[in-house]
Amino acid sequence: MTFEEWMRAVLARVEAALERYLPGPRIEPARLHEAMRYAALGGGKRVRPLLVHAAGELTGARAAALEAASAAIEMIHVYSLVHDDMPCMDDDELRRGKPTVHVQYDEATALLVGDALQSQAFIALTDAAALDVPAQAALVRELALASGSLGMAGGQAIDLASVGLMLTRSELETMHRMKTGALLRAAVRMGALAGEAPDANAMSALDRYAAAIGLAFQVVDDILDVTTDSATLGKTAGKDAKDGKPTYVSILGLEASRALAAQLHREAHEALGSFGGRAQRLAELADLVVNRVS
Amino acid sequence: MTFEEWMRAVLARVEAALERYLPGPRIEPARLHEAMRYAALGGGKRVRPLLVHAAGELTGARAAALEAASAAIEMIHVYSLVHDDMPCMDDDELRRGKPTVHVQYDEATALLVGDALQSQAFIALTDAAALDVPAQAALVRELALASGSLGMAGGQAIDLASVGLMLTRSELETMHRMKTGALLRAAVRMGALAGEAPDANAMSALDRYAAAIGLAFQVVDDILDVTTDSATLGKTAGKDAKDGKPTYVSILGLEASRALAAQLHREAHEALGSFGGRAQRLAELADLVVNRVS
Repeated sequence: MTFEEWMRAVLARVEAALERYLPGPRIEPARLHEAMRYAALGGGKRVRPLLVHAAGELTGARAAALEAASAAIEMIHVYSLVHDDMPCMDDDELRRGKPTVHVQYDEATALLVGDALQSQAFIALTDAAALDVPAQAALVRELALASGSLGMAGGQAIDLASVGLMLTRSELETMHRMKTGALLRAAVRMGALAGEAPDANAMSALDRYAAAIGLAFQVVDDILDVTTDSATLGKTAGKDAKDGKPTYVSILGLEASRALAAQLHREAHEALGSFGGRAQRLAELADLVVNRVS
Repeated sequence: MTFEEWMRAVLARVEAALERYLPGPRIEPARLHEAMRYAALGGGKRVRPLLVHAAGELTGARAAALEAASAAIEMIHVYSLVHDDMPCMDDDELRRGKPTVHVQYDEATALLVGDALQSQAFIALTDAAALDVPAQAALVRELALASGSLGMAGGQAIDLASVGLMLTRSELETMHRMKTGALLRAAVRMGALAGEAPDANAMSALDRYAAAIGLAFQVVDDILDVTTDSATLGKTAGKDAKDGKPTYVSILGLEASRALAAQLHREAHEALGSFGGRAQRLAELADLVVNRVS
């Protein structure tokens, strides 16, 4: 199976899993459920679910387990986008090529959509038909730690506080390691933990891989923000510069940022060395993260 | 031990557990952690933690387990208050006798405080030192279901949609069963499940108890909203009427609301009949919920 075919198959399974793990659009409160589905379905690159599946192939995880884990982590990611787009945060009107939730619905609904998607993620992870009890508990902990104040939400707080400031490269790295890196790392770990628990060496190699692609993802995001138009991105281009947010491009310049992305790309591949061909999909995903154009 | 002494001892343990399960105020991002602690510590009636402990006494749950469960459910309750008070929701400036989080800090911080408190609840519930793995998974599921779109968040969505409408009594009951009842029921169930899992009969009696006090809690809230001043309540009195929100008092009148509270009080006691003296604290909490003055 080519990478393209694998990816298409995984994306179809992830969409079906999200569809299944979200309450139906006619269940009350219907408007809230409709808005949750508007935010989560039919869009997005699904990088985290792809990482869950690629890591799960390494440890022989069952399809049902990877689907629950994928739906859960994507719901957390989507909730963070919905809240980050709100007027009191980044105040953005376009996401995944569609009006953001608070524009399409209203602010109160956007707030509740995010809140309920977070709960829904933990409901998905405790689906006894998909995951055995020890995996449920382990995955809940990974996801909660990665999304809380020492992970994603904390990174967002640092991001907001850094508007208009000139961060050092190391401060910028800390911010991104929390804001986006923690959840990408959790995707890899959750995929692996959904199967036969890997040993400490394997887990640490996966952590090195995840750290490298997590940072690479952000560096490439910052490059695309200044080199690509809104229509291609599906979100407002050039927004970070306009908002006075520090980025890799603003700190290092465009060429040094490209060199950094290439170096992180190499580090990701090196981290997978000990797995051989079993890590093929993870290696291909590292290529995708670095070479993407949107 | 009198009820007063029992309550004081539990409240001290709950405060210590919250203190322990919240990141320290000097851990980065320090402002976010300070705001999370501002919201969660040193205030509130702690009704849900008291219910967790009272139910846990029925099933012989360990103190550490009840502390983790109490901290988790109180963090969910506090996150919902922080988000509900925001300008795009109820727009309130006073909570537990202090300025609300978005007033004391800012809106973006309030949004992130709520988000991170929800994650932190699930971190607390997967503390391996407090709960064994099956209890972790069971309690996560109870709490996630009670707080999501079919519970608390969904009830809040119905509440917002009902402003200015004349709900029937049954619609009002559905709204409250989700908005506050689901979490109060989860408190009772989580406390019970933290110990020796009760049989189906016991669980169903506890559900009947929880349904009665959950509704009684809301009826009494509505009565207090029109009969008590803001200083006693620690939040803005008369706000529901001002906001055009349907309440038990606006639908049934004050006297019929008092009669309903008394009837629910009796139902709560009747549901505990089969437990005898072991349910003493749950019975006393039913009295507290109905007879409280703030």
